[in-house]
Amino acid sequence: MKLIRFFSLVAVAALTLTPAHVESQEIANAYRDAANRLIDAATANDDAYTRLGEVVDLFGARVAGSVALENAHDWILEQMEADGLDNVQADHLLIPHWVRGKESLHMILPRPRELPMLGLGGSIGTPPGGIRAEVMVVSDFAELTVRADEAHGKIVLFDVPFTSYGATVAYRSQGAIAAGRVGAAASIIRSVTPYSQQTPHTGNSNYADDVTKIPHAAITVEDAEMIHRMVDRGERVELHLSMEAQTLPDAPSRNVMAEITGSEFPNEVVVLGGHTDSWDVGQGAMDDMGGVVAAWEAVRLMKELGLQPRRTVRVVGWTSEENGGPGGPEYARQHADEDHVLAMESDGGVFKPSGFGFTGSDEAFAMMTEIGTLLDRIGSGTITRGGGGADIGPLMQTGVPGMGLNVDGTKYFWYHHTDADTLDKLSPDEVALCVATMAVIAYVVADMPTRLPR
Amino acid sequence: MKLIRFFSLVAVAALTLTPAHVESQEIANAYRDAANRLIDAATANDDAYTRLGEVVDLFGARVAGSVALENAHDWILEQMEADGLDNVQADHLLIPHWVRGKESLHMILPRPRELPMLGLGGSIGTPPGGIRAEVMVVSDFAELTVRADEAHGKIVLFDVPFTSYGATVAYRSQGAIAAGRVGAAASIIRSVTPYSQQTPHTGNSNYADDVTKIPHAAITVEDAEMIHRMVDRGERVELHLSMEAQTLPDAPSRNVMAEITGSEFPNEVVVLGGHTDSWDVGQGAMDDMGGVVAAWEAVRLMKELGLQPRRTVRVVGWTSEENGGPGGPEYARQHADEDHVLAMESDGGVFKPSGFGFTGSDEAFAMMTEIGTLLDRIGSGTITRGGGGADIGPLMQTGVPGMGLNVDGTKYFWYHHTDADTLDKLSPDEVALCVATMAVIAYVVADMPTRLPR
Repeated sequence: MKLIRFFSLVAVAALTLTPAHVESQEIANAYRDAANRLIDAATANDDAYTRLGEVVDLFGARVAGSVALENAHDWILEQMEADGLDNVQADHLLIPHWVRGKESLHMILPRPRELPMLGLGGSIGTPPGGIRAEVMVVSDFAELTVRADEAHGKIVLFDVPFTSYGATVAYRSQGAIAAGRVGAAASIIRSVTPYSQQTPHTGNSNYADDVTKIPHAAITVEDAEMIHRMVDRGERVELHLSMEAQTLPDAPSRNVMAEITGSEFPNEVVVLGGHTDSWDVGQGAMDDMGGVVAAWEAVRLMKELGLQPRRTVRVVGWTSEENGGPGGPEYARQHADEDHVLAMESDGGVFKPSGFGFTGSDEAFAMMTEIGTLLDRIGSGTITRGGGGADIGPLMQTGVPGMGLNVDGTKYFWYHHTDADTLDKLSPDEVALCVATMAVIAYVVADMPTRLPR
Repeated sequence: MKLIRFFSLVAVAALTLTPAHVESQEIANAYRDAANRLIDAATANDDAYTRLGEVVDLFGARVAGSVALENAHDWILEQMEADGLDNVQADHLLIPHWVRGKESLHMILPRPRELPMLGLGGSIGTPPGGIRAEVMVVSDFAELTVRADEAHGKIVLFDVPFTSYGATVAYRSQGAIAAGRVGAAASIIRSVTPYSQQTPHTGNSNYADDVTKIPHAAITVEDAEMIHRMVDRGERVELHLSMEAQTLPDAPSRNVMAEITGSEFPNEVVVLGGHTDSWDVGQGAMDDMGGVVAAWEAVRLMKELGLQPRRTVRVVGWTSEENGGPGGPEYARQHADEDHVLAMESDGGVFKPSGFGFTGSDEAFAMMTEIGTLLDRIGSGTITRGGGGADIGPLMQTGVPGMGLNVDGTKYFWYHHTDADTLDKLSPDEVALCVATMAVIAYVVADMPTRLPR
């Protein structure tokens, strides 16, 4: 029974194989040795993890506009030169420069407590002396709309449990607009996370031109729930919020990059990378220096193994991703005249990789699926439909096929934009698997005789 | 095959049954209805969790010597009266009064970072202006001994990964003595925990009479590992530690308690409880107001159901457990003339209960094992050998059988002595199961015709 099923599946598969499939399988077979060499080299030691540790320990958090970010860029460029990579280069651009300054949040009533908090990126500060006001707690935007006439002069707290990032982050990005529109004095959100140890999470936020700007900050899950319980019991909760946050004039920054120039088609480029900036907390190890280092190590390993592909492979550390800044768009603009074959990004944390989400034509997807089989031995060859990244999005909009590394994201949002995004949350083995995964795909696509179709 | 095995097991069991076993089984059978009523009532609603939420939200952290702790005691006594319990009573005593004051720890070299930290209970403060010194990192006491001549004037960092609480807590309790003995200026430990989100853990610590006292504090796992990596790379790490901690004169406090007076043997007492104090962070919800409330609700449920036992059941909230204070010893001293039949404590967090650890005679253990079967329907009837608690330890030393509630402690040390020990870490259902578990055992032992043997 089992055998019969097996044979009929093979027969069906054979019948549906297109010439492109056959060609893809041939490509995969042709690159098995190279792929195995890359995998073996990536997983032979902890080099990637060690390099990641060096950069995040040396520079710590690297918020857009900070000296730390530019010092990290200098260091990366030096190290890329030392690695012997080609065309080590920095593209200059101006990026937003938001600074937190001093900030604090105290519960005054019903009893004193200093609440762990983080102002949200882009928020204005409070007036000198801060804002003291009663709290109005709502569970979602709909409740705020229903109770809009209660909000004037209050500090609105959005106590919204995490469901998915996409759904819950709306309160971080739009909360100050919604609360400002109904006359609130300030807006506070429950941090966007499924798990907390009194851990505030920062992140980008927005204002609208037609709504008065109010300060916008995040508190912990614990304190949001506590305040909600207090208010439900009929207690009056008053908070004192003090924030010096301000947006300074745009600051100079750089996208940093290096290559292995293609031996045959140097003008065709496979680009891979992550973003170098983080928020101003933690080490930005997971989000996203890990992505930068994994891509960088992938390219460095090709160099070390003497695997110069026919096309150019380029690693890029994009700047200013966190605040919706222009790193990705500027790269696309400044390199618009180049022929990008594929763009690849890692920005979901360098945890155990499972493969990639791919955006491109059916023909290209079929080809990537076959190439992915080269990663089966480390379990990271599953190519799924749809994927990319914030930094490669502008390139992809011009028609370049794009892909984002898929990883085990179980704990990603536990650490996302917090002081706990630190090296120890990652494992040397898993970082090495990310390097291997990016290296194999990038190398094969850069070297294979047929160009990846659009 | 299966049937044969079953019958032979029954035969073996029957052959080994002692008269005490038979009697125990009869007791268990006689109390099945009462046990089921207690279990049904405890698990019918979220009353225990709601009461726990009220007390921890109203008063927050309750460190020994604080106004918050004594306000909580007042509230508990009022509520016990309102519950209609008998002999609501406060035993007065003096307890240690350590205060944290302002404190901070900054990394100066190799780059600035404010490190989350908590001074350890009992620590002295730094001189005004703080202590700035190079860090010496050691992995254990043995390494400090080997490198003792390097320690003079340094801040010693014990970067000791968590293995078990018993093993790792030695660095919290003895670190300042070991570092002081070799001339260090201050002692810092990696927080005693298997998991961290930049979470510092406080807790009690000690000095020795023959060693100069030095300030003693905890940093996070993340920062301890980072500093260790920096030093391993050959970087010089300098910290600036500032602590205003001091020990004030002993403060007045109370053990708070209430009873259901026994109908037949009022002078025979089954005592159960937990400790009311916490450290000065978080809400002390898990450690240990949850234990106090579970025991209290167990007794209140007997009252509500009209289950007045033959012997007296007494719930106690002991004070000042965290700093090794005199709550438990003073209870034993002030109630030395009473006839305690059994002492029961919950101080491992009111997570999903599995049963009790019991300390007493073989005969008593056999009886408790049979009574435990009344809890089989909620999976919390497993009685294991050995157990008790810090607060009932002094009673147990006088020969009173003792038992400690066993729970799923998987995450206990994630929150222990941190700002994240808050209500949300507990579940209403699991708290209710703890109530049911304590209620059934306490009621049966207090009511059964035969006194629990010593």
